[in-house]
Amino acid sequence: MTDIDARLAALGVTLPTPPNPVANYVAAVTACGLTYISGQVSSDAGGGIRGTVGVDLDPAQGRDAARLCGVNLLAQMRVAARGDLSRVRRVVKLGGFVQCGPDFSEIPAILNGCSDLLVEVLGDAGRHSRSAVGVYRLPLGFAVEVDAIVEIDGVAA
Amino acid sequence: MTDIDARLAALGVTLPTPPNPVANYVAAVTACGLTYISGQVSSDAGGGIRGTVGVDLDPAQGRDAARLCGVNLLAQMRVAARGDLSRVRRVVKLGGFVQCGPDFSEIPAILNGCSDLLVEVLGDAGRHSRSAVGVYRLPLGFAVEVDAIVEIDGVAA
Amino acid sequence: MTDIDARLAALGVTLPTPPNPVANYVAAVTACGLTYISGQVSSDAGGGIRGTVGVDLDPAQGRDAARLCGVNLLAQMRVAARGDLSRVRRVVKLGGFVQCGPDFSEIPAILNGCSDLLVEVLGDAGRHSRSAVGVYRLPLGFAVEVDAIVEIDGVAA
Repeated sequence: MTDIDARLAALGVTLPTPPNPVANYVAAVTACGLTYISGQVSSDAGGGIRGTVGVDLDPAQGRDAARLCGVNLLAQMRVAARGDLSRVRRVVKLGGFVQCGPDFSEIPAILNGCSDLLVEVLGDAGRHSRSAVGVYRLPLGFAVEVDAIVEIDGVAA
Repeated sequence: MTDIDARLAALGVTLPTPPNPVANYVAAVTACGLTYISGQVSSDAGGGIRGTVGVDLDPAQGRDAARLCGVNLLAQMRVAARGDLSRVRRVVKLGGFVQCGPDFSEIPAILNGCSDLLVEVLGDAGRHSRSAVGVYRLPLGFAVEVDAIVEIDGVAA
Repeated sequence: MTDIDARLAALGVTLPTPPNPVANYVAAVTACGLTYISGQVSSDAGGGIRGTVGVDLDPAQGRDAARLCGVNLLAQMRVAARGDLSRVRRVVKLGGFVQCGPDFSEIPAILNGCSDLLVEVLGDAGRHSRSAVGVYRLPLGFAVEVDAIVEIDGVAA
């Protein structure tokens, strides 16, 4: 058990085995030393978190949704790193999108649900640059979507 | 005629000669081995597809709009690849934005209009990672905008 | 005084010393030769420009807001370049987000406030690829957010 596995266990986080998208896009592409992970929504085996922050979801639910995106990003990173998250040298950039209502603008606090998880699990390697915007609609009504650019050791470009 | 030219012809797709933006941004920049293509909207010589998916455009029209973005991305890739699309080693990442109404969330299906075209034309080199969000407004009311990161052989950084 | 410092002075632009975000994300990450700068909003020491373009802000105010994002991006680039903006070899990509109302679609003209500043200050090195979308809500109600990918000489990956 690696340190990262131990941290995941202590946090009570079980990473799913992510399905590959059933389309002409794929979960991740590595090029020129960086791995680009497709936008991960706030889904899980139980259905995930759908809704609009500030309308039918409160900020705590929004934050939980962003954390789910983080779980799904970690699951994709683990696949890209051939099972070993300690190969993640750095999470370089997150693109965060929150489905939110007209009167809600605490978007960074929502996305911290994802950012915090990455640092809790990966330590300093999880610290990233980020954009954070509130969008009108997300795929299938999920509350949050986050994509990522990650540097992973030992992954051929 | 290359294989790619043949596929474009079979699909009935004619790539336009894209104008450079009349501004301080440019159509594409190559750095560190990757080419970053500016967001391409659903425009064509006939005016393109404007409107809001789920309001005044139906899903099929939205999908056609995304396909137009794909045509325009291919046109920009061809310029960046100095006329030879077979130099495109990999489409690395698409950022997809759909102008959609409050009750529409089938955003991935819309963007498949772009994703599918890239794979039809480029084969496996066209398979990409992707983010997909529904936004409130797009430039000049166009229905879809997609930007891209592409790895192209033989293009100096 | 470098040429760039002289241009900043001639433009009347004073770059702030940017605070680091108080969160698990950081202002900038460099990997594989490129520096990824977190989304910069239209803030300044006086409070910045908040509001919705086409609703309570007119286009000129929106353009000013985008220019503020450009000032904040330059401030972050200067930190990343250890104080010397002449090390910026190229602004590679901007991701521009405008908080706008339902009837406003002149999004590119708004973002030119940022694009133009970068070229006024950095010359050809400031010419970039760009995406431009209108979003529903931005952090804390700021009118514009722009993130950037920049190539900077002499910055270790």
